[in-house]
Amino acid sequence: MTQENIGRFPITSVWPQVDGGKYSAKAFVSEVIQFGAVAFREGHDALAVELVLTTPKGNVSRHPMHPGAPGLDQWLLDLQLNEQGIYLFQIAAYDDEYETWHHNTEVKLAAGIDQDLMILEGKRLAERFAKNADAKAKKGWTALLDIFDKNQEPISTYENILAAGFGEMAKANPLRNLETVSAQYAIDCERTLAGSGSWYEFFPRSEGAKKDKDGNVTSGNFKTALKSLDRVVEMGFDVLYLPPIHPIGTAFKKGKNNTLNAGLDEPGSPWAIGNTAGGHDTIHPDLGTEKDFRAFVLKANKLGLEIAMDLALQASPDHPWVQSHPEFFTTRADGSIAYAENPPKKYQDIYPVNFDNDPQGIFDEVLRVTKKWISFGVKIFRVDNPHTKTVSFWQQLIAEVRKIEPDVIFLAEAFTRPAMMHTLGKIGFQQSYTYFTWRNTKAELESYLSELASQSADFFRPNLWVNTPDILTQYLQFGGRPAFNIRAIIAATAGSSWGMYAGYELYESVARAGAEENIDSEKYEYKFRDFEACVKSGNSLAPRVTQLNEIRKAHPALRQLRNLKIHKTNDESILCFSKHLAAKTTGKANTVIVVVNTDPASVRETTVHLDLAALELSGSFKVKDLLTGKIYEWSQDNYVRLDSFTEPAHIFEVIR
Amino acid sequence: MTQENIGRFPITSVWPQVDGGKYSAKAFVSEVIQFGAVAFREGHDALAVELVLTTPKGNVSRHPMHPGAPGLDQWLLDLQLNEQGIYLFQIAAYDDEYETWHHNTEVKLAAGIDQDLMILEGKRLAERFAKNADAKAKKGWTALLDIFDKNQEPISTYENILAAGFGEMAKANPLRNLETVSAQYAIDCERTLAGSGSWYEFFPRSEGAKKDKDGNVTSGNFKTALKSLDRVVEMGFDVLYLPPIHPIGTAFKKGKNNTLNAGLDEPGSPWAIGNTAGGHDTIHPDLGTEKDFRAFVLKANKLGLEIAMDLALQASPDHPWVQSHPEFFTTRADGSIAYAENPPKKYQDIYPVNFDNDPQGIFDEVLRVTKKWISFGVKIFRVDNPHTKTVSFWQQLIAEVRKIEPDVIFLAEAFTRPAMMHTLGKIGFQQSYTYFTWRNTKAELESYLSELASQSADFFRPNLWVNTPDILTQYLQFGGRPAFNIRAIIAATAGSSWGMYAGYELYESVARAGAEENIDSEKYEYKFRDFEACVKSGNSLAPRVTQLNEIRKAHPALRQLRNLKIHKTNDESILCFSKHLAAKTTGKANTVIVVVNTDPASVRETTVHLDLAALELSGSFKVKDLLTGKIYEWSQDNYVRLDSFTEPAHIFEVIR
Repeated sequence: MTQENIGRFPITSVWPQVDGGKYSAKAFVSEVIQFGAVAFREGHDALAVELVLTTPKGNVSRHPMHPGAPGLDQWLLDLQLNEQGIYLFQIAAYDDEYETWHHNTEVKLAAGIDQDLMILEGKRLAERFAKNADAKAKKGWTALLDIFDKNQEPISTYENILAAGFGEMAKANPLRNLETVSAQYAIDCERTLAGSGSWYEFFPRSEGAKKDKDGNVTSGNFKTALKSLDRVVEMGFDVLYLPPIHPIGTAFKKGKNNTLNAGLDEPGSPWAIGNTAGGHDTIHPDLGTEKDFRAFVLKANKLGLEIAMDLALQASPDHPWVQSHPEFFTTRADGSIAYAENPPKKYQDIYPVNFDNDPQGIFDEVLRVTKKWISFGVKIFRVDNPHTKTVSFWQQLIAEVRKIEPDVIFLAEAFTRPAMMHTLGKIGFQQSYTYFTWRNTKAELESYLSELASQSADFFRPNLWVNTPDILTQYLQFGGRPAFNIRAIIAATAGSSWGMYAGYELYESVARAGAEENIDSEKYEYKFRDFEACVKSGNSLAPRVTQLNEIRKAHPALRQLRNLKIHKTNDESILCFSKHLAAKTTGKANTVIVVVNTDPASVRETTVHLDLAALELSGSFKVKDLLTGKIYEWSQDNYVRLDSFTEPAHIFEVIR
Repeated sequence: MTQENIGRFPITSVWPQVDGGKYSAKAFVSEVIQFGAVAFREGHDALAVELVLTTPKGNVSRHPMHPGAPGLDQWLLDLQLNEQGIYLFQIAAYDDEYETWHHNTEVKLAAGIDQDLMILEGKRLAERFAKNADAKAKKGWTALLDIFDKNQEPISTYENILAAGFGEMAKANPLRNLETVSAQYAIDCERTLAGSGSWYEFFPRSEGAKKDKDGNVTSGNFKTALKSLDRVVEMGFDVLYLPPIHPIGTAFKKGKNNTLNAGLDEPGSPWAIGNTAGGHDTIHPDLGTEKDFRAFVLKANKLGLEIAMDLALQASPDHPWVQSHPEFFTTRADGSIAYAENPPKKYQDIYPVNFDNDPQGIFDEVLRVTKKWISFGVKIFRVDNPHTKTVSFWQQLIAEVRKIEPDVIFLAEAFTRPAMMHTLGKIGFQQSYTYFTWRNTKAELESYLSELASQSADFFRPNLWVNTPDILTQYLQFGGRPAFNIRAIIAATAGSSWGMYAGYELYESVARAGAEENIDSEKYEYKFRDFEACVKSGNSLAPRVTQLNEIRKAHPALRQLRNLKIHKTNDESILCFSKHLAAKTTGKANTVIVVVNTDPASVRETTVHLDLAALELSGSFKVKDLLTGKIYEWSQDNYVRLDSFTEPAHIFEVIR
């Protein structure tokens, strides 16, 4: 029989925790975390439960927890974590002798049973509290015991000792008889951007790229792209992610629309990394020098924008590693190096790294490359296809990098099965791409957004991208401009982190035939977009994106991950969710209610039914639509009309 | 950051396990257990997963696991455990090089890609297997390598090496490249009766009790009750549970129908234990001597019946402990010993034990008492209200008793909230009473029976009692005889363990006004029942009970806990479930399908939709109704008509 000692008071479940404490739970600075436990005792006497919290700086504090829903023996407490580093916590349960005495006395005095005895028991209890009290508290207890000694009628004594603060004094410094303490669990509280932020992606080679009359192209570079930083900042983004900026292989280079025979003038896919000019530690000569890149990062940071680099661990056949480190790859029985394939498909422009051949060598080299870019001011890496590399490699790399620079964030571009995606979060990835782009109906969104905000939130932090260079869903292909608007609204308000790839604001919706990807994809060619002209002519979503990011900045509830709650509506396409921060947790209540028509080709009317208790509301109250500025009187059940062709959503702030 | 090393191949979830391995999972001899794991790898190559099992005797064996439903990365294996003791198991995952090669070669040969290369890679792989092979297997590998050396066309070579058994040989003795092994978990496999059996309860004082013409009563005793053993055995029960058999307190003795002023001639409640004649270690003089009890146990055992005793840790004010061990109880501030109460209710006939006053003293005394009765041949204890005693006491007691006698079974009479009930199972109770008596509708039963068979089955083993001296539900009070029949059918077939308290077979359905308990409860008085006459006059459910226990004995699938599966029906009251044992797991398939009308006052017709795949069935097949002997042709969708007034159920055996 394997049996851990159950302890005096069973504490059988504690959260947040991940896999029984094998991995620390995730949090980010400013995140509100629900601490919880299942704790109970035998019989009818009272139990008290406390959270014992040790902050990263080592301060220990105790916080009383309150009971959850009846019958489940849950004890709960919401706390906002504001310090970066490792929080440690335990749950303590003890015999609440005051509460047991108080309850029994209340009932017995009223029933005329054991009146003198209960006062005597109360006195004995007060004496024990007095004995336990520190010098400061002693005075209060002495005064209380004096009341007992007056020998008034039991009911008078009872009223007087309660009025004198027996309860408050007992709770302020409990006896903690028979205290039982749970195991200790860790919460890794990372910087805010690890869990909350808005992201934009562009290809620097397109930013400022020029085509002359003869069709000759001059690549954009880190100098010409400097100007584009203003556009990104004006839209209110926090992070700018760049696809790989390294030299691109020439062997089997991909042409326009993923064709196999690229012309010499075609730029190729930036994910085919490495040529004679260098590999992962080198800047593509077309994009400029290391000095240019350093200046680009610096300027971005000055504007309040962080740069995220791509970490794509694969090589083109021209990559310097192929010569210097053939052991990084798989050598086939005929002596050739294995290219990527998913038989019968071949990807001859890519050599996948074999992590089992020389684990330490590969680790050292990737660490070297990562550290180099960190020295340029880069603190965010978007990892390409981490699920095709060994998980243990990422665990080792992220741990080592965080030792050097605790602020570094790794975003997993893992579109695969849940077990792998969740595990990458557990072993260290701060964020992950999600299935969000493929969850478009109300029912899909209710289920998926709830899952992200609750079941997986302790280890898997979603970044809700509305599109990527690889993903242009049918919803966007066929939903028209309303579809782009709807998806941006949902991503920016439901997601603590959301992201957008350049071109989305221009409603680029034409796919390559039969693919879920833009035609003339930027992955294989330059793009020449006139963002400003589109805004002027009213053909850009950028003003809406700016508005959404402004709303996010003004409403801390929206920047939380775990506070999403679904509310019922009577329409199959009108989705309603709220994000709420309680005043008692953060000092100031903040409540946002989003109602959105997920059907981009309809005008719908319905009734929205709010769970008012969950929002700490009752009766009627005023809400302000942050998109239009209009104020409405709302209550539990509310009529809405949402026209996807004009304005598919309300984003209400509750006015308190 | 807390992080366990993830290992080369992530194995992120392993079952059965309880609270991350804090407690061993439960099984019983002959139980079929699903072993499972979530295990996966990066990229596209194949993974193999094995269960490494160590039996209680120390034999280690490896069992290949098979993939579960697509997308979940689950690996599964059902095994029947047939040895009493602790099984240990681990999950091992390794690089399935043969399968990767086999899959790629299959695809590439067909597509005309890399044909020579794949054969060469196969040869290199075979060489490694040959090098790894033991003397016995070496010959086969040499023959295989000879085929490679013949230098035939690649497709011919491929066909020939497969025909020569490359796959079978590779799987029989895998290379297990990069093997990753999970933590080790324990399964506590107890004797069969710990998880599977049928129970009957009677009060020995009623068995053979006589009332003369003047109303004078002679108590039944262990001698007169000997005859009743035949009745219990004839109905096919495995266990006979006796309420406390100890002297009954005289102070505040309870009278008929729980009244407070019992006459001297009233026997009192057997749960008010102890008087001057003795306490928990003493036989009530009315029931006979220790010798009589010993003979009673012996006779029962000879008839194939085990005796379960009641372990009710409380004392009447007359109990010898009150004098010899006042520290076992709570002394109030006025010097009196605290009786049981739930203010303002008082239970002055009972002194509850205070487990915090003298934990070691109480433990020693209870262990002494338990050991005494074990020495009489008792190996089962039904524990009265364990949830009002400290959980840690039970953990210590059960562990210590099992060291002395591993066959001892403790049944928890815990009717309380789920957290406590589940925890009592985790810390050692072999079985528990359940909410079954209050789950009467189809929807309630579908949900609850599924929960018992799956979510909680690793630690909580239900015993489905249809009634107890404390419970006569409204369903039985108002459902008439069909209600008694329906509930017995469901309990006996859905429950691996089920139980019945005497009088149920006589349809005793009159409650004390306003209570969920029989009027004139046997707890406070003698019962004079003529079971035989009722059978003769057709007024007994005993023949049906006999039939149900016979069906259980003949059908091992019914004696399993975890194999219950709900099937859909179109009627809101007709419940359908199956219990299935696969031939590959137990050697012989056994499948029982139960269809029952849970509405005791109706005749209903509907269609039953079977999940044939779950039963390893397809098309049409014959089923035999074990209640009537009739044979039907069934398939996926089947018409049924169930008349609760005549026969509310089918219990079908699938004829294979």
